Amino acid sequence: MSRLDAWPFAALPAFPAERYSALGERIGRILGAEEHDVVLVPGEAIVALEAAAREAGASRRRFLNVATSVYGRLFGDWLADAGGEVTTVSPAVAGQPIAIDEVRAALSGGSFDAISFVHGEAATGIVNPIDDILAEARGLGLVAIVDAVASVGAEPLVLGEDGPDIVVVGPQKGLRGPAGVSAVAINTRGWALLARPPRRATLSSLSLLDIRRDWLDSDRAVIPGTPAPHELWALDAALDAIGHEGIDGVVARHRLAARAARSGARALGIATWTGDDERSSGLTTGVLLPQDVDRTRVIALAQALFGVTLAVGPEGVDPRLVRIRHTAAEAGFEPVLAVVAALGGALVAAGADVDVAAGAAAVVSVYAEARHDDAHDD
Amino acid sequence: MSRLDAWPFAALPAFPAERYSALGERIGRILGAEEHDVVLVPGEAIVALEAAAREAGASRRRFLNVATSVYGRLFGDWLADAGGEVTTVSPAVAGQPIAIDEVRAALSGGSFDAISFVHGEAATGIVNPIDDILAEARGLGLVAIVDAVASVGAEPLVLGEDGPDIVVVGPQKGLRGPAGVSAVAINTRGWALLARPPRRATLSSLSLLDIRRDWLDSDRAVIPGTPAPHELWALDAALDAIGHEGIDGVVARHRLAARAARSGARALGIATWTGDDERSSGLTTGVLLPQDVDRTRVIALAQALFGVTLAVGPEGVDPRLVRIRHTAAEAGFEPVLAVVAALGGALVAAGADVDVAAGAAAVVSVYAEARHDDAHDD
Amino acid sequence: MSRLDAWPFAALPAFPAERYSALGERIGRILGAEEHDVVLVPGEAIVALEAAAREAGASRRRFLNVATSVYGRLFGDWLADAGGEVTTVSPAVAGQPIAIDEVRAALSGGSFDAISFVHGEAATGIVNPIDDILAEARGLGLVAIVDAVASVGAEPLVLGEDGPDIVVVGPQKGLRGPAGVSAVAINTRGWALLARPPRRATLSSLSLLDIRRDWLDSDRAVIPGTPAPHELWALDAALDAIGHEGIDGVVARHRLAARAARSGARALGIATWTGDDERSSGLTTGVLLPQDVDRTRVIALAQALFGVTLAVGPEGVDPRLVRIRHTAAEAGFEPVLAVVAALGGALVAAGADVDVAAGAAAVVSVYAEARHDDAHDD
Amino acid sequence: MSRLDAWPFAALPAFPAERYSALGERIGRILGAEEHDVVLVPGEAIVALEAAAREAGASRRRFLNVATSVYGRLFGDWLADAGGEVTTVSPAVAGQPIAIDEVRAALSGGSFDAISFVHGEAATGIVNPIDDILAEARGLGLVAIVDAVASVGAEPLVLGEDGPDIVVVGPQKGLRGPAGVSAVAINTRGWALLARPPRRATLSSLSLLDIRRDWLDSDRAVIPGTPAPHELWALDAALDAIGHEGIDGVVARHRLAARAARSGARALGIATWTGDDERSSGLTTGVLLPQDVDRTRVIALAQALFGVTLAVGPEGVDPRLVRIRHTAAEAGFEPVLAVVAALGGALVAAGADVDVAAGAAAVVSVYAEARHDDAHDD
Repeated sequence: MSRLDAWPFAALPAFPAERYSALGERIGRILGAEEHDVVLVPGEAIVALEAAAREAGASRRRFLNVATSVYGRLFGDWLADAGGEVTTVSPAVAGQPIAIDEVRAALSGGSFDAISFVHGEAATGIVNPIDDILAEARGLGLVAIVDAVASVGAEPLVLGEDGPDIVVVGPQKGLRGPAGVSAVAINTRGWALLARPPRRATLSSLSLLDIRRDWLDSDRAVIPGTPAPHELWALDAALDAIGHEGIDGVVARHRLAARAARSGARALGIATWTGDDERSSGLTTGVLLPQDVDRTRVIALAQALFGVTLAVGPEGVDPRLVRIRHTAAEAGFEPVLAVVAALGGALVAAGADVDVAAGAAAVVSVYAEARHDDAHDD
Repeated sequence: MSRLDAWPFAALPAFPAERYSALGERIGRILGAEEHDVVLVPGEAIVALEAAAREAGASRRRFLNVATSVYGRLFGDWLADAGGEVTTVSPAVAGQPIAIDEVRAALSGGSFDAISFVHGEAATGIVNPIDDILAEARGLGLVAIVDAVASVGAEPLVLGEDGPDIVVVGPQKGLRGPAGVSAVAINTRGWALLARPPRRATLSSLSLLDIRRDWLDSDRAVIPGTPAPHELWALDAALDAIGHEGIDGVVARHRLAARAARSGARALGIATWTGDDERSSGLTTGVLLPQDVDRTRVIALAQALFGVTLAVGPEGVDPRLVRIRHTAAEAGFEPVLAVVAALGGALVAAGADVDVAAGAAAVVSVYAEARHDDAHDD
Repeated sequence: MSRLDAWPFAALPAFPAERYSALGERIGRILGAEEHDVVLVPGEAIVALEAAAREAGASRRRFLNVATSVYGRLFGDWLADAGGEVTTVSPAVAGQPIAIDEVRAALSGGSFDAISFVHGEAATGIVNPIDDILAEARGLGLVAIVDAVASVGAEPLVLGEDGPDIVVVGPQKGLRGPAGVSAVAINTRGWALLARPPRRATLSSLSLLDIRRDWLDSDRAVIPGTPAPHELWALDAALDAIGHEGIDGVVARHRLAARAARSGARALGIATWTGDDERSSGLTTGVLLPQDVDRTRVIALAQALFGVTLAVGPEGVDPRLVRIRHTAAEAGFEPVLAVVAALGGALVAAGADVDVAAGAAAVVSVYAEARHDDAHDD
Repeated sequence: MSRLDAWPFAALPAFPAERYSALGERIGRILGAEEHDVVLVPGEAIVALEAAAREAGASRRRFLNVATSVYGRLFGDWLADAGGEVTTVSPAVAGQPIAIDEVRAALSGGSFDAISFVHGEAATGIVNPIDDILAEARGLGLVAIVDAVASVGAEPLVLGEDGPDIVVVGPQKGLRGPAGVSAVAINTRGWALLARPPRRATLSSLSLLDIRRDWLDSDRAVIPGTPAPHELWALDAALDAIGHEGIDGVVARHRLAARAARSGARALGIATWTGDDERSSGLTTGVLLPQDVDRTRVIALAQALFGVTLAVGPEGVDPRLVRIRHTAAEAGFEPVLAVVAALGGALVAAGADVDVAAGAAAVVSVYAEARHDDAHDD
């Protein structure tokens, strides 16, 4: 007899079309979308990003692409591959958020139809100045394309009537869902920007316009393609959980965790990467190790002594950058306290002079005060 | 308090890289692959097919594409989009398998570097003559590309040293696994055929060469991209189950189910689509309804009276074609008996003159005889 | 690394007390209980039965115990062990339902305070004449104790104001739930009958009065004892599913399955055990094999040839009795057709002269007609 | 359509008998049992305890019952209810472990056939001196009965040839398994002590002798009674996980967690309940709050501010006792750090003068040193 566990998990029942339809609407409500369609893309968010970039690029318009990470750079390359005229702007210091002045300078240096940027970067823990960038874009009549994969659920993001025109989201970070399905919210201006790259085939896996034709513009009786039941049932469950907590609650929980992580790091005696809480992510916090410690060893010690996973920053960014996670289920008192204490404990074990006790106490204080205030607000 | 069910299912732990590595090897063993690499593609098999076609087409070689369904036609279009020189051969009657003579005639009418075809078609229940086509290909020194998504697990398929060069498989049909991940087996000749389409971006979701670079040619310590845990854990579980049953057992089970379905249909008094058991799929059986009954009504009655799902054939194929499934968990006595009896019952309810009792009895006989023989073989 | 499957399944989060409270109410609604409390018993229904019998017996009252199976006999023994004065009445033919005249005769032969009986017996597929027995009990002012474990969900059972006083139910049969928790519905008359057997300990696992004290009469803030989360979450899920289908739908589905099974058996050419549809269970159907076939061989053949499980009847009952299941998920067209056809196929393989084709066709007809009528009723 | 989640969870496939047989053997290996049979009891461990006590008591022998908690007192009451001659010995201070001298004094004050005691108490975090008690028992030729429900997996316990004679275990604490099934290991001396209480019924849910008759002494082809699949599959999964970690690893993990918890508490500035690490549990740690703080408020604050659950000690024990858990999945760096920090944070919020920073740092130090030593040992 085979194991029980092998059977129920391997194959799941088909996900019903009417429920599939509701998934898009539920994601729309999380985003505060009013004018936007939400299409589900069968694939991790990088598929949705490549599809959006290639169909936007095929319009052969002029794009200012803000590149604060590898994803931003890839987005620009896909735009250009597909025929877009792409200008790139990057921050002065690799891995830092873009400054609004850098965006303004780039915008004034050329003439553009659209602007594209990443909202939050999980790899460095930075958040770009979305409101300022959108204000510039609106002022110039540009279509705005936002990669919100690493910000949805962790930063405030409300599309409303006036939000960005094309917004790519993934359920696997702040929303605590599956990684093999993603979504794009698009309004009329967004759809108008897209153009199908020249092709003979009636279908491509990298096409938002195909999904529109085969789902949005259909009678929505049959999910297009061969949907992956695991992803859809898991997304359904993740949206249920968000429904219980409320998207505002999810965001507030991430931001409190981030605040505690930053406060803890500073009390340990080490700097945060951005140095600017306004530009710091709710999903991860970047910290800068002291000059004289071996980053690889610190990370190995955190794992070996405390079972806690730290991560290096991306290539090309300051080699002292370490990223600590407080994403999804880890956005809570217990994991944040553990990661701050483990970072401190590993640094001590590696010979650095940090104050573990103060770091842990700072995390406790942030939670005690936040919840105390909550109690008084009620 | 949130529902228990919402939590454990929405997010799963990361799938470990060493286990990911084993997935490819386990699929290779199922395929009897000796010389082939197996790469996992993060997406339903249509992603793997488009990637294979686009990178094969980018070689600008000459392809004979056998199109026995929409997937075959799409494959040819992707080849051509990417720069391939594509000649198409289709069966004389839409929806029927290709005849080997049709392939030979097409091959002799031109000069080719490669041949591409679908092994089995779930939409019509046909199987193309893979051994004959491969013999022709070998004789002419052609690279052979096979879409085995709807045949793996249901038809014999052993790559060995001499099998096709590029074989696309999906776990969601005969292997009873998830639909959001797929695999491609490629040997040296297969890899040699592929070429990267011109692009600036370092990465595309439609590239087998990128997966080779980022996984096969890496130290395999980190799964490339952002893998979807649900798909990988589910594939792992599906492979466990196949390990228990044995791939030969899986194939034999599907073929027995198919035999019973065809025998049942004939005893009801209706024809099977292919009329040729050698060209009939282990996953589904196509049957031809009598002339005078309303196909839509029969399908609705089977659902309403018996809770059994029948399906129409694809567009452009004889409108009397109805497809019955005996795939994965449905490849067994109970589901096959039910679908044959429900087809019969629905036809009677729709006014047709079929013999429900004989149809059911024929299914019982096929199983009784097969297992009786098994018992004597042991 | 441990298997994913090992982790989430082994331990589940605690089941919340407020939800526990709702479980009892939801079971009460399924039973149509108005005046009854429903207490959950941590254990399979046999624990609830033994607890009820021992505390009823401890009252030292006079019981007429109707014993149509081993469970009925055990119930009488527990009553007597605890001090009850027990008179037993059994059917003339072992394994048959009790006749109301047999009950009447027994009642008139003595003087009683209470009557106890099993509503439906899964082991033989019989149903006792509950309405008639309850009418007698009411006429004589007797407390009525009913074992409804193998009838709830499969036979109509509505407690209302006037139903039996103590009713034991289990979720694992007609309700398609877990087997490690059970429930007892008790009204004022039922509670009044119970008495605690003499003991020094403050607690026993065989006590409904302890559960009343520790849960019903408490503030219901803490589930008493150490509850088993798997059982409670599974019961919760089973009640959700019943909520979707409706208890009337669940019962109707079982009765349709039973009707089809009986019709199929007769068309095969074999007799049903009761010969009386009114006294036949919705969960299982007992059939009588022909005289000259080997029951053990028929059961083995059904398993080997068709993968279908048949079961023998209980000890002491006619050795030709075979029981076929149509319980819970198996109460549907597909499983009933399969079991009837497999019974027929196995009998043929064993040399008996039965009509497999007619048996299968009869099952198809029952479903076709039932659903046709449904359609016209709507 | 019903929710996916409702269906697969509510009902599970039957647990196979051969696998059931292996469950007992696997538990035996965890206990280091050589001469003991292991029987599974369908019910939470309190059922197994009551069954053992009643059948031991029915032997009408003389028992010294060591009562360090409500479970110990209940055990004595069940022994006496069933006819045993019971002498009780309790610690001088309620909630403290028994001292071996107290046991010796009691033993010398009478003449006994058996001794019964609880190994570890989760409610107070104490561990009784099992080795010393067993040495006394062996010296006097007494049968030893041990309730190891709250010690298995958390304290060393190896039955071997010379261990206690009747040992009751539950999977739901240190073994991280389900709560609705339990097990008893019994050797020849243990079986010889048991006697069936007088009864007419052939079966009781409170009988180890019935389980022996219906399983151990049977051909083990059919699991007795109506087993609860959820419990058995979950136990199977829990044993898999223990197999991966190793029982020694499980015990070491609990003991490290306990050491960190005690060290953290002392660094906060509060006392541990036992004051003796040798007598402190691996599952929970009892701490004594300062005199002047309100225990209820501290527990409420830990929950409100930090989401961390603390618990009061049992009735009759010092009202300043608070219990912190480090059981099963919570026996790790992250949960222990959180519970110590939350206890400290809640005490500060309640006005007490404790050192949160020092408490957290102490936990970090214990883990850093332990793992550092591990690394050097390797």
